[in-house]
Amino acid sequence: MSQGKQQQAKGKAQTGISPTRAEDYPEWYQQVVRAADMAENSAVRGCMIIKPWGYALWENMQRVLDGMFKATGHKNAYFPLFIPKSFLEREAKHVEGFAKECAIVTHHRLIAGPEGGLVPDPEAELEEPLVVRPTSETIIGEAFAGWVKSYRDLPLLINQWANVVRWELRTRLFLRTAEFLWQEGHTAHATEAEAVDETRKMLDVYATFAEETMAVPVLKGRKTEGERFPGAVDTYCIEAMMQDRKALQAGTSHFLGQNFAHACGIKFQSKEEREEYAWTTSWGVSTRLIGALIMTHADDDGMVLPPRIAPTHVVILPIFRDDETRAKVMPFVEQLAAELRQKRHGGRDVDVEIDARDLRGGEKNWGWIKKGVPLRVEVGPRDVEAGSVVYARRDEPTKDKHTATATELVEGLVSILDSIQANLFARAKTFQESNTRKVESWDELVAYFASKPGSNEPTGGFALAHWACDSAAEERLKEHKLTVRCIPLEHDGETGICIATGKPSPQRVVIAKAY
Amino acid sequence: MSQGKQQQAKGKAQTGISPTRAEDYPEWYQQVVRAADMAENSAVRGCMIIKPWGYALWENMQRVLDGMFKATGHKNAYFPLFIPKSFLEREAKHVEGFAKECAIVTHHRLIAGPEGGLVPDPEAELEEPLVVRPTSETIIGEAFAGWVKSYRDLPLLINQWANVVRWELRTRLFLRTAEFLWQEGHTAHATEAEAVDETRKMLDVYATFAEETMAVPVLKGRKTEGERFPGAVDTYCIEAMMQDRKALQAGTSHFLGQNFAHACGIKFQSKEEREEYAWTTSWGVSTRLIGALIMTHADDDGMVLPPRIAPTHVVILPIFRDDETRAKVMPFVEQLAAELRQKRHGGRDVDVEIDARDLRGGEKNWGWIKKGVPLRVEVGPRDVEAGSVVYARRDEPTKDKHTATATELVEGLVSILDSIQANLFARAKTFQESNTRKVESWDELVAYFASKPGSNEPTGGFALAHWACDSAAEERLKEHKLTVRCIPLEHDGETGICIATGKPSPQRVVIAKAY
Repeated sequence: MSQGKQQQAKGKAQTGISPTRAEDYPEWYQQVVRAADMAENSAVRGCMIIKPWGYALWENMQRVLDGMFKATGHKNAYFPLFIPKSFLEREAKHVEGFAKECAIVTHHRLIAGPEGGLVPDPEAELEEPLVVRPTSETIIGEAFAGWVKSYRDLPLLINQWANVVRWELRTRLFLRTAEFLWQEGHTAHATEAEAVDETRKMLDVYATFAEETMAVPVLKGRKTEGERFPGAVDTYCIEAMMQDRKALQAGTSHFLGQNFAHACGIKFQSKEEREEYAWTTSWGVSTRLIGALIMTHADDDGMVLPPRIAPTHVVILPIFRDDETRAKVMPFVEQLAAELRQKRHGGRDVDVEIDARDLRGGEKNWGWIKKGVPLRVEVGPRDVEAGSVVYARRDEPTKDKHTATATELVEGLVSILDSIQANLFARAKTFQESNTRKVESWDELVAYFASKPGSNEPTGGFALAHWACDSAAEERLKEHKLTVRCIPLEHDGETGICIATGKPSPQRVVIAKAY
Repeated sequence: MSQGKQQQAKGKAQTGISPTRAEDYPEWYQQVVRAADMAENSAVRGCMIIKPWGYALWENMQRVLDGMFKATGHKNAYFPLFIPKSFLEREAKHVEGFAKECAIVTHHRLIAGPEGGLVPDPEAELEEPLVVRPTSETIIGEAFAGWVKSYRDLPLLINQWANVVRWELRTRLFLRTAEFLWQEGHTAHATEAEAVDETRKMLDVYATFAEETMAVPVLKGRKTEGERFPGAVDTYCIEAMMQDRKALQAGTSHFLGQNFAHACGIKFQSKEEREEYAWTTSWGVSTRLIGALIMTHADDDGMVLPPRIAPTHVVILPIFRDDETRAKVMPFVEQLAAELRQKRHGGRDVDVEIDARDLRGGEKNWGWIKKGVPLRVEVGPRDVEAGSVVYARRDEPTKDKHTATATELVEGLVSILDSIQANLFARAKTFQESNTRKVESWDELVAYFASKPGSNEPTGGFALAHWACDSAAEERLKEHKLTVRCIPLEHDGETGICIATGKPSPQRVVIAKAY
């Protein structure tokens, strides 16, 4: 019996995922990941296994982002997994930020232990421990120091696709794991202005990617001092709102000033033949984006995929009872699939899967609903006679079905996919806007986020408040599990009074609970 | 003064790379890597930095291989970087093969040490050390054990693109490094026959890729027992011949029998409702392939790239003295580049670079020769007047130049690239064949590989000898720095007498020196 059926039997509304978002949001999230077969916990504490459906999402993200990085002049390279401890120590704030949660390699050989089994060989202890990279500023900075000699070598625009490790004790699939996959851009420039421009340009690339490819609306902003990347002069971010109204930082772009240039010795001879330190940036997004995708679009029936990121755009479910009806349906289905595959969407061929597995129709249908495939198409013997199909859009209620001729579906496919993409973005945007409000006092802020007694209904959202960026005030926010998510780049110029300190505030900031 | 010029001044033939292959082959290799800016050693012992030109080669290899894996039904996924020590210990031969050269994580935090600086926090020692994956049979096997329940879940066809670490003390860029990038396929099957078929199928994929994409001719064969992957029942390989006549193992495909299924508990219920262990395979190629590419095609002027793998197919070098001639040349060059970019080769758009840097023409030209770009096109003011171009093919001597109209070049581009690709393969194939011979006795074998006194001229090649696969005899080979590279899959059925033991031999094997 499927989960939905079980619930029906128990008299509840039929949903693909149990519990629903309203019932238990964190558990709903885990169940969506599981039902779509995207990832699972591994036997290694904190490390996840990204399963094929989840990895295909990452591949699609990589393909689009990689194209955007290359179009903006960046080249890919690869740097060592290990960072000598002494490199990490070169930048004081940097090491302070990462020393507490890093995996440390101390030996390079196992030998038979005194009690059987293998132990690290004491003879093979490393002179200097190596840290598994939590981020690569220092190891890439060391390389840049060798590559940059003259202003002619600048700008140096490099990106790396890699795995990184930050030892996390409380992990959640995609959102927070000890090992995760990401890209990290690292650039060096001759002037401060160029480096700031780069930082902002890559933030724009991330925002465009999030909104246009992932259909995830984001706010662009700067972080307060307390939330900056360890070692950065300025950290820019994109913040998205999840369906429990919490914020999720979906990408960051750091202006590093000359901090790492000093730490790593990235010097160059200027046009004026002076020796100068370079200005550097770094920027990254990770597999965490898959968590953002899930919590923005998924519903109580499971994953919902924007077509531009979906591994499969269309699944065709042939319906037949026996060999005779199968022989009637399958040629029609294969012809239809071939025609749909001729179409392109979001810069790639439309991917069509035919699911002719020997399973009950309902089970198959629910499987694809939970995986979030944008379009499901059913074809039975009577449809073949009529030359028609029945299709369902994942952005509409599960039971809503459309009938069309095969030709209409083929001709209309691209605009249906565009419409799903636009619809998902619009829905998320409306949700974000309707849960964003101005807050004029500390009490109003606290009340906005206060949970109702005995209810786990979400409260709050994005609170726009005047704020003087005082670090003591930020500590007070934390008592309410709140943080300043960002100082928005776009604002109306309205000045005011900080709701925490009464000091003058140049603009409103975004305060929220966050992942 | 360029390197070539320096040599000319010294009265030697002008070459882009010094020393030449004949002078000092190992040093020539390092200099080719350096001159093409493909990779460099990092500050971390044994770990390399893959620079943009080298990484672009890897990206092209990945793109083609990934397409071939998907076309044969495999899906990508991602598994943890860390392997619990106890997992590695589950398969006795496997752990014996890898325990001696692995990076071991023992702590998860750094704290301030008694003498200043940071030290691994004794309070944060892991209960069980983690091994940085040298290969992933055991960690993926653990996951497979959870995924496989019934024969319906088989075959399970998974691939992973990842970094791995094998602690090597003597390293050489691309050929042998502590960390390298690779792909590792892991599959599970219901029957032995299916698993053997998969092992052979992926070997064929590798051979096709090496020959058709990389233009590297290979021999397909099985390894002798002593050369098998630790834990495998049978290891298949492709072996290529480098220009110093040494063999390089370019890819392996392992039939693992039920060894890892037993070690990891990969069991399933068969159609007959019996509990059975699965049959598994694994197969991989790595960034080592870039080393094979270099040592197959590069010459005394530097890298030589087969068009199908070249990041840039064509570089256009505009020649101008001043703003006036620049204004004349550049529009012609940009129009030519635009037309060339309309063409496709090897399944992708032709990549054209215009090098208008303010450098001397000779310096630019030599830079691209050393990088191995297949086609260099020069356009000066007089060429513009004549509507013509001068081009040089990297597979021809540096000074050989062709004149053609721009239209002829555009129309002929694809066939020129095809011809370069075919020519490089044919050249390498001829080299391999002319350095392969039958050897009928032990003395003849030793003589074939004996170096001439006072000469570093290469000797030997691939010796085809009758062999009874006796392990003591293989030890004797090692005294001469020789190994059995493979038992070829294709042979003429000729049986004979083993040159080492006098025992009957079912077929000839390939004996060679190897990387």
